[in-house]
Amino acid sequence: MATSARDTLEVSYDEFCGALAAKDLQPLWTQAARLMPPEPIPRTLPWLWKWSTVLPLARRAGDLITIERGGERRVLALANPGLGGLPYTSSTLWGAYQYLGAHESAPAHRHTPSALRFVVEGTGVWTTVDGDACDMSPGDLVLTPSWTWHDHSNPTDAPMVWFDGLDLPLAAALEAVFFEPYPELMQAVRTDHNESERINGGRAIRPLGEPANPRHSPLFIHRYRGTDEALRDLLRARGGPVASIEFVNPSNGASAMPTLGCEMHRLVPGERTRARRRVGSAIHVVFRGAGFTVVNGERFDWERGDVFVVPSWAAVEHEAAEPADLFAVTDRPVLEALHLYREEALDLPQEIVRTFAAK
Amino acid sequence: MATSARDTLEVSYDEFCGALAAKDLQPLWTQAARLMPPEPIPRTLPWLWKWSTVLPLARRAGDLITIERGGERRVLALANPGLGGLPYTSSTLWGAYQYLGAHESAPAHRHTPSALRFVVEGTGVWTTVDGDACDMSPGDLVLTPSWTWHDHSNPTDAPMVWFDGLDLPLAAALEAVFFEPYPELMQAVRTDHNESERINGGRAIRPLGEPANPRHSPLFIHRYRGTDEALRDLLRARGGPVASIEFVNPSNGASAMPTLGCEMHRLVPGERTRARRRVGSAIHVVFRGAGFTVVNGERFDWERGDVFVVPSWAAVEHEAAEPADLFAVTDRPVLEALHLYREEALDLPQEIVRTFAAK
Amino acid sequence: MATSARDTLEVSYDEFCGALAAKDLQPLWTQAARLMPPEPIPRTLPWLWKWSTVLPLARRAGDLITIERGGERRVLALANPGLGGLPYTSSTLWGAYQYLGAHESAPAHRHTPSALRFVVEGTGVWTTVDGDACDMSPGDLVLTPSWTWHDHSNPTDAPMVWFDGLDLPLAAALEAVFFEPYPELMQAVRTDHNESERINGGRAIRPLGEPANPRHSPLFIHRYRGTDEALRDLLRARGGPVASIEFVNPSNGASAMPTLGCEMHRLVPGERTRARRRVGSAIHVVFRGAGFTVVNGERFDWERGDVFVVPSWAAVEHEAAEPADLFAVTDRPVLEALHLYREEALDLPQEIVRTFAAK
Amino acid sequence: MATSARDTLEVSYDEFCGALAAKDLQPLWTQAARLMPPEPIPRTLPWLWKWSTVLPLARRAGDLITIERGGERRVLALANPGLGGLPYTSSTLWGAYQYLGAHESAPAHRHTPSALRFVVEGTGVWTTVDGDACDMSPGDLVLTPSWTWHDHSNPTDAPMVWFDGLDLPLAAALEAVFFEPYPELMQAVRTDHNESERINGGRAIRPLGEPANPRHSPLFIHRYRGTDEALRDLLRARGGPVASIEFVNPSNGASAMPTLGCEMHRLVPGERTRARRRVGSAIHVVFRGAGFTVVNGERFDWERGDVFVVPSWAAVEHEAAEPADLFAVTDRPVLEALHLYREEALDLPQEIVRTFAAK
Repeated sequence: MATSARDTLEVSYDEFCGALAAKDLQPLWTQAARLMPPEPIPRTLPWLWKWSTVLPLARRAGDLITIERGGERRVLALANPGLGGLPYTSSTLWGAYQYLGAHESAPAHRHTPSALRFVVEGTGVWTTVDGDACDMSPGDLVLTPSWTWHDHSNPTDAPMVWFDGLDLPLAAALEAVFFEPYPELMQAVRTDHNESERINGGRAIRPLGEPANPRHSPLFIHRYRGTDEALRDLLRARGGPVASIEFVNPSNGASAMPTLGCEMHRLVPGERTRARRRVGSAIHVVFRGAGFTVVNGERFDWERGDVFVVPSWAAVEHEAAEPADLFAVTDRPVLEALHLYREEALDLPQEIVRTFAAK
Repeated sequence: MATSARDTLEVSYDEFCGALAAKDLQPLWTQAARLMPPEPIPRTLPWLWKWSTVLPLARRAGDLITIERGGERRVLALANPGLGGLPYTSSTLWGAYQYLGAHESAPAHRHTPSALRFVVEGTGVWTTVDGDACDMSPGDLVLTPSWTWHDHSNPTDAPMVWFDGLDLPLAAALEAVFFEPYPELMQAVRTDHNESERINGGRAIRPLGEPANPRHSPLFIHRYRGTDEALRDLLRARGGPVASIEFVNPSNGASAMPTLGCEMHRLVPGERTRARRRVGSAIHVVFRGAGFTVVNGERFDWERGDVFVVPSWAAVEHEAAEPADLFAVTDRPVLEALHLYREEALDLPQEIVRTFAAK
Repeated sequence: MATSARDTLEVSYDEFCGALAAKDLQPLWTQAARLMPPEPIPRTLPWLWKWSTVLPLARRAGDLITIERGGERRVLALANPGLGGLPYTSSTLWGAYQYLGAHESAPAHRHTPSALRFVVEGTGVWTTVDGDACDMSPGDLVLTPSWTWHDHSNPTDAPMVWFDGLDLPLAAALEAVFFEPYPELMQAVRTDHNESERINGGRAIRPLGEPANPRHSPLFIHRYRGTDEALRDLLRARGGPVASIEFVNPSNGASAMPTLGCEMHRLVPGERTRARRRVGSAIHVVFRGAGFTVVNGERFDWERGDVFVVPSWAAVEHEAAEPADLFAVTDRPVLEALHLYREEALDLPQEIVRTFAAK
Repeated sequence: MATSARDTLEVSYDEFCGALAAKDLQPLWTQAARLMPPEPIPRTLPWLWKWSTVLPLARRAGDLITIERGGERRVLALANPGLGGLPYTSSTLWGAYQYLGAHESAPAHRHTPSALRFVVEGTGVWTTVDGDACDMSPGDLVLTPSWTWHDHSNPTDAPMVWFDGLDLPLAAALEAVFFEPYPELMQAVRTDHNESERINGGRAIRPLGEPANPRHSPLFIHRYRGTDEALRDLLRARGGPVASIEFVNPSNGASAMPTLGCEMHRLVPGERTRARRRVGSAIHVVFRGAGFTVVNGERFDWERGDVFVVPSWAAVEHEAAEPADLFAVTDRPVLEALHLYREEALDLPQEIVRTFAAK
């Protein structure tokens, strides 16, 4: 083809692309490979936040910031650097540390994003969910399912910091976020705390006549004591290197919330878990112990209170240096409900090519 | 119409009916009202068996009968007099007391009818279900779901008697009964007893990766301790006159077995429950306390260990004289699965017109 | 053992059995093998009723019997000789031929047993289901699901006879039969007949906003034209010797009714189907063609309009002499819902050891 | 507060925010109201693309672009101006027009995003899905469910243009996109086209033995003839101003694909539909007729072949000037599966405050 002819063609093609853009059209053929890659190319980066870094900042926020209507919560969001400045920890999950001062309360509201609270340390605070005060202690998991009223109360003399997990990035991507403040600052609380636990937390028991498929799980709190027993028994019966449990909705055995999977993993020191990768992301909170995790060849060292995130389809191995419990919140129920979940085990351990330098 | 004409017609009609019978046909119009009554007309009679009567007979059976292949179990079936000599307690349920002597075993087998064992007294015996030895103590409920291998072992110096509940009449009506002896006399038992309880009996916890819809419940035993706590908490939160719980399959929240509903009811002394009637029958085992039940106007007095059966659509009220726990096995899951379940509360208490004279 | 000792023992044992009977107890060990056989021992006998026999009797019933309240229907039940005089075709299924004279109506009522009507010949009659008149033509299947109001109207100059299938034996065994006459003799009928067909009979289409899990199928009639096309296409795509379809509830893909499976089987002449056995019974209505069926070694010859029943776990093979369509009503949905269904193919064809002599 | 003190505080607060950013943390309290608005604030803009604009550009693309591996398809994506340059039509949906020249083929591949093809005009082309060639005619809807192999073949002398709908934005947000080219350029095609339609497109009929919950709908094509009949019958039975149907998976009555709802709406000319708003977005393709739609007070005039998109929670009314059919693809199944769906009818019609000027 002669140069002039090619030029004509190119001008013509450029003109054509301009014409498309002017009409709010885009060609697929120039970006097909990027839009439809052979495997997921997550924007989420594997990342880690140190408890020793976050805690002082949370305390300083306690000094500087007052909790009130509008701001609602004193929360430090773990913002993944891969997500372009959004306050999201992965493309679907929000992870954060929340600080509640001594004798403080965080006002009551509800929202369509589902949320959970996981307690790393401290006690004496309660989260009230639809009128039921759930007392919070280390290792406990508190659920505030979609559109349930919730507030937090700290009647003690010490501040408390806990981990918040939400599906906010997903709900936002679905353009499905609704929010409503409670008419009063705080909900009235029934005298007997922890009713959901007492009524619905029994072992494979349901109050007769309760609906089999309620709008959300009837159980708002999962106690560490039960988690600990389950992990110990599972490890004894099935062996290591890891025992993994999922928290479920006792009324139907489904995941605790439709958009958030809640898991706890107990690692046997000195044994590396088999490398696996899964569609969907997971935020891990180190509840106990110390060790490291390899994500796509990068080593993340962690200890108690640290949080790290694993992106979709990243190869993952864990190894504890001392007995360790990792709490994880994931988007797996979403991927399963939409028939998009996959996972696979890798044949070989990953080679560690670098170590993450936590800030 | 003249007599002769009517006679002719009648002869003709009788001849016709004879002709039908000869061809294996039957007219509906003569029996429509009986076949399709306005409300269920159960053949099952409300009935009661006394522990004080059954126990000596069970012991005597222990002296007279050896357990072996073929006979399989030393079981006294509670035979409802309304069922024409069948060894069934209701039209769908089999209730019985089983006696296992000191240092005796009952051989391993499996069958498509589902079964449960409810312990009234004694301890030290275990039922092995698919290799998992489930230790039995008072108030415990042991499941041997359809087609699971099971046998019973009594290593103690004392005999033990417990209640057996099966769906055998239903499975027989469905012509769906299969039976298979285990190749050995007894199953091999894993060293750690009660594995199903340890692994699957957690509070709203599932081992990660377990199937969400297994062939049957992964939990073979429900302990009285948990039942007791659940009833106490429910009574405290919701008030009396009765607290009722259902035992469920923790993997999906469905009834513990697809054909047998398992319930426990705690009665507050001195308060009469509201009269209700339900489609489907229920066998009650008195685990604790004493009181009476009114069924269609007939009073049944009961105490610990007694068993009574309530037919379909019979009006029922309970009243305890002292704190009482009633275990119940029902066919409700069947009626619900087939969309045939109904229940209703009656406006008024029943008038007691007679008292059942137990044998 | 000396004679006298044995006598003593036997007397003692007999006395003991008497003592049990007096207290409404029965020993299991004497009847265990009969109660729990290795495989189902159905009471239902394989049996066949000839159209050429039934039809004249149905007509004679038309002369002799008036349809009115109380008798409700002019129905000849196919009474299985194995069931001890009950008007049931199998242990769970009722099959019958119903006769409706020219210009006659059968009054409106509803009942918890589910029913279906399958048309062998005739046209112009309609069955009204919850106010929707469903016009009936050969090969059509009309559903009257549990607790729907229904009546039959024949405005034509000719009588009509069709097949009725019900789950009455099952509902009776479950003591769950309710019946209610309609306040009027007949329901008011909407001007446009066949509304359920027009609105819900579309091809994989649902009116937007309709409930996804209605109380019963929203479709009351399945037309033979659609059945015929489906069988033809299936045979063409998958080959013979048989094409089998099931009629389903279009709102959820489940069986047309929760307690009755409705099937149609098209047989290729001259090819024997593979011997199979299934838990549960099936009544077959010969809609088209002629041939024979082998059940547990017995040959049943059939032609258009004949009805035959196959008991649970009986080995079955079909062979048509000319293109044949067999409609079948089964209890399979019940067995599947209760997790009691099994089926297996046999390795070899059955040897035919005798031929059934139809009356 | 004196100026210097405020300054100090502000410096201190600014410093603190800088410290947070340095550690990949973000405060919630400054952005809570934006992250959790009272109602969804979609980025998706209501928008409309004219068929008369797109068609000439699609033809020009046909002259300029060759279809080959890598580019895969000659597709013009409808890029919503609210989405910052992404080739997406809404935050969860991809809409596009695809052009296939005479005697051209588009190569075989599969991907986890689900896709559909809706034909506005033209005939003779087929889409092959897992080996089954589905012939495409106006009004037909062809499904290529997640991870099914598919390619397009045009053996005719005329080009064809159709609408493509995908859940690509959702699958990308979930970081769940996998893609695989078929080993050959095109799949082998079975001689008999449209097998899925013939075998699974029957009216409430399922081949016996097919799985009740297959990985995806067994039906790959929904014909306009059936759609047209269903809409006509629904309009006749229920009246206007609109008849709406959803295309479903015949095996379970669920939406045709787990992530894409497919609907068709027939409008009665001159009648305004009631204003409604729904969570989730919808792309509409005008198959027939002309009229206008009001979205949040803005009027969009449309005619055959035009495409318009409605964002989440936008108020919508339709009014046809002549009998009109609107095909719609939505994300409703996603929102329902995740328990995030809501809809509401508005009391009053919207005031039209402006008219969209289509390019």
